[in-house]
Amino acid sequence: MASFFGSFPFSSIVRIALGIEYDGSAFSGWQWQDGPRSVQACVEAAVSKVADHPASVICAGRTDTGVHALEQVAHFDTDAKRELRGWLMGINTALPEDVRVLWAKPVDDRFHARYSAIARFYRYVILNRPVRSALERRRVTWVYHPMDEARMQLAAEHLIGEHDFSAYRALGCQSKSPRRRMYFIHVYRREDRVIVDISANAFLHHMVRNIVGVLIAVGIGKQEPEWAKAVLESRDRSQGGVTAPPDGLYFGGVAYPAEFGLARHPVLDRLPADACRYTGDPADSVLHELAGEEVVE
Amino acid sequence: MASFFGSFPFSSIVRIALGIEYDGSAFSGWQWQDGPRSVQACVEAAVSKVADHPASVICAGRTDTGVHALEQVAHFDTDAKRELRGWLMGINTALPEDVRVLWAKPVDDRFHARYSAIARFYRYVILNRPVRSALERRRVTWVYHPMDEARMQLAAEHLIGEHDFSAYRALGCQSKSPRRRMYFIHVYRREDRVIVDISANAFLHHMVRNIVGVLIAVGIGKQEPEWAKAVLESRDRSQGGVTAPPDGLYFGGVAYPAEFGLARHPVLDRLPADACRYTGDPADSVLHELAGEEVVE
Repeated sequence: MASFFGSFPFSSIVRIALGIEYDGSAFSGWQWQDGPRSVQACVEAAVSKVADHPASVICAGRTDTGVHALEQVAHFDTDAKRELRGWLMGINTALPEDVRVLWAKPVDDRFHARYSAIARFYRYVILNRPVRSALERRRVTWVYHPMDEARMQLAAEHLIGEHDFSAYRALGCQSKSPRRRMYFIHVYRREDRVIVDISANAFLHHMVRNIVGVLIAVGIGKQEPEWAKAVLESRDRSQGGVTAPPDGLYFGGVAYPAEFGLARHPVLDRLPADACRYTGDPADSVLHELAGEEVVE
Repeated sequence: MASFFGSFPFSSIVRIALGIEYDGSAFSGWQWQDGPRSVQACVEAAVSKVADHPASVICAGRTDTGVHALEQVAHFDTDAKRELRGWLMGINTALPEDVRVLWAKPVDDRFHARYSAIARFYRYVILNRPVRSALERRRVTWVYHPMDEARMQLAAEHLIGEHDFSAYRALGCQSKSPRRRMYFIHVYRREDRVIVDISANAFLHHMVRNIVGVLIAVGIGKQEPEWAKAVLESRDRSQGGVTAPPDGLYFGGVAYPAEFGLARHPVLDRLPADACRYTGDPADSVLHELAGEEVVE
């Protein structure tokens, strides 16, 4: 999606990155659609209002209906001159209350919210108790049966590294390659919540929810941890488990090369040292293609 | 509010206690009102449906508009015979999704959700960062200025023990006595949240929110910690700070004498050993009067 400015001919145009939190409950997802309410349309309208020109906003990872974001990253280009505080407060004033811009930062014009990303991190929150939550409905996924998070971690270990994730992608997934590099999956308990922090270079459609579906089946004792490996090796979606619902899923954050100067969520400190896979050089075409793929979780 | 059964003449009537979580955002508070949506009316309708007779439900501490509950405790009387699991699932099925019964337990007929309580505990959650939350709007109170939770704790220490809390009660508060015994106030930080756990034998109207209003003023450096003591000693509400909003306030739990066999929230482990102030004996009239007062926070 090219900026309406085209390339930057006279450097009066700046690129601004945004960190965005949203409650996905009342959205049809990130992407602009003709009709349903989308996060992208809300953010573009707010940015356009403050910039006083139509603006396109590109995000790091598109999210599906009902999926939330702790810190989505997006960028836009503008020739409007505003203080950073002006962008932040102005955009937030123009946004509905279920979307908030957490920070705004000028970035190099080689930065691209989607293409520059080294890794994405998702968080999946499972409420594991006998009764649903009144306070966090649509913010957590409810599992009645007691779960063993240590078993889930054992299952998750089988997915670390570069694999063909065909068995964990949605049937309609448009990605050219089913290969992804899984950096880490960390399963832990906080009282009656079981939390899954999961990071890969990029994700296939429904990949997190399909992985969590398998982990839940292992966690409640319906399957052995090795089943996660058997499903992976089958490369067959029909061998997998139920797709976990969107309620407990949060786009957690993005890691970019240090040169862009954007802070990372502390969870991304777990990334391996060699996680810098995409150089930002357009000649690095295979990785560019991978990084540039539509990511819809 | 007497049960419609009157006293229990032939022991076919049982008293059942409930632990209740609710999202106060869309309620006018706990108490039944002619018109606005109340938690009490929802719970009474659900219990009555499962019991197949009209039921009155009495709670430990009435909450105001917009105030949430992690674990409100209430009781009702019934001659209906149901398994505990039947009560729990039946009532939850009949409740709207912003109220959930966490547990149901038969209790001695000397148990009274309000009169038997030794202590109530409230939690107040402040989001302390530059931007409001999209995900937790109406679940937290937002404070922009950086807060020093250690200063807030120092201020809170001045309120521990038995005091005349006139300066911290709402002007319209109906309680006969302004004296309450404050058991503990614990102020702590979890990343960008500052949390206040506060427990007293009972609370005056707006007492938690007025105390938190003072603690916020101290936390942002607008007042010294000793101001909390000066306000207390003034016994004059007009000397206090702004009443903090209901959004971040949760009725956290109740402590009852061990003989009733109800589990307590772990936060209530902080109660002093001599916290058993009300014996349950109606002859203990002064304490009965105090415990029986309307508690509206």
